[in-house]
Amino acid sequence: MYRLPSALLLALAAAAPAIAQPKKVPIALRDFGSFHLGGRLIEITGQPVKEVLFTPGGVPAKIDPNGKYQIEQLYVQYFLPENRKGKLPLLLWHGGGLSGVTYETKPDGGDGWMQYFIRHGWDTYVSDAVERGRSGWTNTFKGEPVFLPLADPWERFRIGPIGSWSEDAAKRTTYPGTQFPIDAYGQFLKQAVPRWLTTDAAIVAGYIELVDKIGPCVVLVHSQSGAFGFKVLEARPEKVKALVAVEPTLGGDKDKISLVKNTPVLFLIGDNAKEHPRWSKIRAGDLEYADALKAAGGSVDFIDLPDRGIKGNSHMMMMDKNSDQIAELINTWLASKGLSE
Amino acid sequence: MYRLPSALLLALAAAAPAIAQPKKVPIALRDFGSFHLGGRLIEITGQPVKEVLFTPGGVPAKIDPNGKYQIEQLYVQYFLPENRKGKLPLLLWHGGGLSGVTYETKPDGGDGWMQYFIRHGWDTYVSDAVERGRSGWTNTFKGEPVFLPLADPWERFRIGPIGSWSEDAAKRTTYPGTQFPIDAYGQFLKQAVPRWLTTDAAIVAGYIELVDKIGPCVVLVHSQSGAFGFKVLEARPEKVKALVAVEPTLGGDKDKISLVKNTPVLFLIGDNAKEHPRWSKIRAGDLEYADALKAAGGSVDFIDLPDRGIKGNSHMMMMDKNSDQIAELINTWLASKGLSE
Repeated sequence: MYRLPSALLLALAAAAPAIAQPKKVPIALRDFGSFHLGGRLIEITGQPVKEVLFTPGGVPAKIDPNGKYQIEQLYVQYFLPENRKGKLPLLLWHGGGLSGVTYETKPDGGDGWMQYFIRHGWDTYVSDAVERGRSGWTNTFKGEPVFLPLADPWERFRIGPIGSWSEDAAKRTTYPGTQFPIDAYGQFLKQAVPRWLTTDAAIVAGYIELVDKIGPCVVLVHSQSGAFGFKVLEARPEKVKALVAVEPTLGGDKDKISLVKNTPVLFLIGDNAKEHPRWSKIRAGDLEYADALKAAGGSVDFIDLPDRGIKGNSHMMMMDKNSDQIAELINTWLASKGLSE
Repeated sequence: MYRLPSALLLALAAAAPAIAQPKKVPIALRDFGSFHLGGRLIEITGQPVKEVLFTPGGVPAKIDPNGKYQIEQLYVQYFLPENRKGKLPLLLWHGGGLSGVTYETKPDGGDGWMQYFIRHGWDTYVSDAVERGRSGWTNTFKGEPVFLPLADPWERFRIGPIGSWSEDAAKRTTYPGTQFPIDAYGQFLKQAVPRWLTTDAAIVAGYIELVDKIGPCVVLVHSQSGAFGFKVLEARPEKVKALVAVEPTLGGDKDKISLVKNTPVLFLIGDNAKEHPRWSKIRAGDLEYADALKAAGGSVDFIDLPDRGIKGNSHMMMMDKNSDQIAELINTWLASKGLSE
């Protein structure tokens, strides 16, 4: 067999398009854009005026750090498909230590849930929580920001079991049949952003303002934003028309169940949660809330993916190799609730 | 004349769609998504393991802050229109204290340059500089982050002349005929993100990696990223096929002009710069570099917008009311260089 000289092969590889992906069906958008909302102004006083050289070799500027500052605003980007099928806007809220990038292109380069839902006709709004990503941050929050070490998500997000992490990538092990694209683990960590532990109230205020702006909508939450989703549902039960809670780290307030029982709720839990020392507790708390909501007449589906034959999913199931399969499950559930055409 | 009761008017306003905008022509994208690139791993040692309660009422997690961390990566989002007219990808790099949001929907709700260039057939890549927005940040940078007080951009970005700012919005004055949408000034400040003064090298490294990934391209820079654009052009003159420098706070290195003279460069300067105490110096530096590049045989256009009859533009001309007019000037210039069909 004739083989191309390796130098030529390299040259051909270099000539490939920068974003090499299979040909996709074009998607028509009737509009797309972004906005910030919410937050408040605070005042700083008593600071000296500084001369700041923003660009070495450039012209210095005088900066008076006293005066008002905008803080705690929320960034939202939206994509409105021409061929709309979802009857309400779909709001995607990410988990802790991350940003809206969670739902975009996956670390392995495949389309994420943002693209899935837009392509399936949902007006899709992806936000960055207050103090994360494009929402900006200030040094006015209490306590210290928390950064995500490379090692931490491997076990905490159930890619591998406790004790499976190694600094040497070749020595790391995973749960059997993990769906997480482990070759893209380092790429995933590039999506991490710092987070504070004292900003929940500001984040919830931002999300309530978002729901007030958008009106009746479907909210999809993940991990940390689970608690935010339930709090916003409790505050605006007439506007949150369905809540999809993907591995929420906390459910709602059992004393407020009568307020929210008209909104259908879907819980999704991935694989290997039932036996995990921390996730088993989180799952038990979610299940307890789901059962209480159901007992009060609420419409709740609590799905452990492995019980549906969907195995190997990590906490980051929107980045897992079978992310489309799970998005389809959500999309079908929303249709079953009369929320899409 | 019959007037609607004001309560009814309020009800009608509340029923309006959340994003009220004139009907737009749908735009077809052959693909869109995002990625992070660049950066490096560092190691933190000697820290105590912490028990962290990420969600009040939830299940605590043990976090070992020791080990490796990903730092200095760069976030990029891309939109590839089906009806492609630009012959090369267009990279939009924002200025200091801001993020890629600079080019998205304007503070007044109108379409920004991102939407303009996508609608005009350019494969468009909008990035957040290292340590800004969705690129994430860490506490490993030298020095303190700089935050943007509400007062500062009013005069420094030439919305009003020196002395025109007031904390009382009603008392603020502007340059005559300012194009900046002053009612949206507070909305603009919601886009601000902190910035360090010590991260230029990391940002330039990220942008070089971006240009290496994308290949031949057009780069559009603004303000702080002016210096980055010229540095990347000097490092990759064969890949940056045109450079649009919108009010760059610094030009290139005059000792490296022979390297870059084959790349056409467009300088754009807004109104009221020539007389402004700081901008007159910045403009003079830009002009000096442009003249040196021209004298060496380079292709340079240096446009003061008011000399073309385009008046009232601030430093944030991509957010000004006539932003489309300036985008059209850029688009026409790119076409004149053979870079679009």
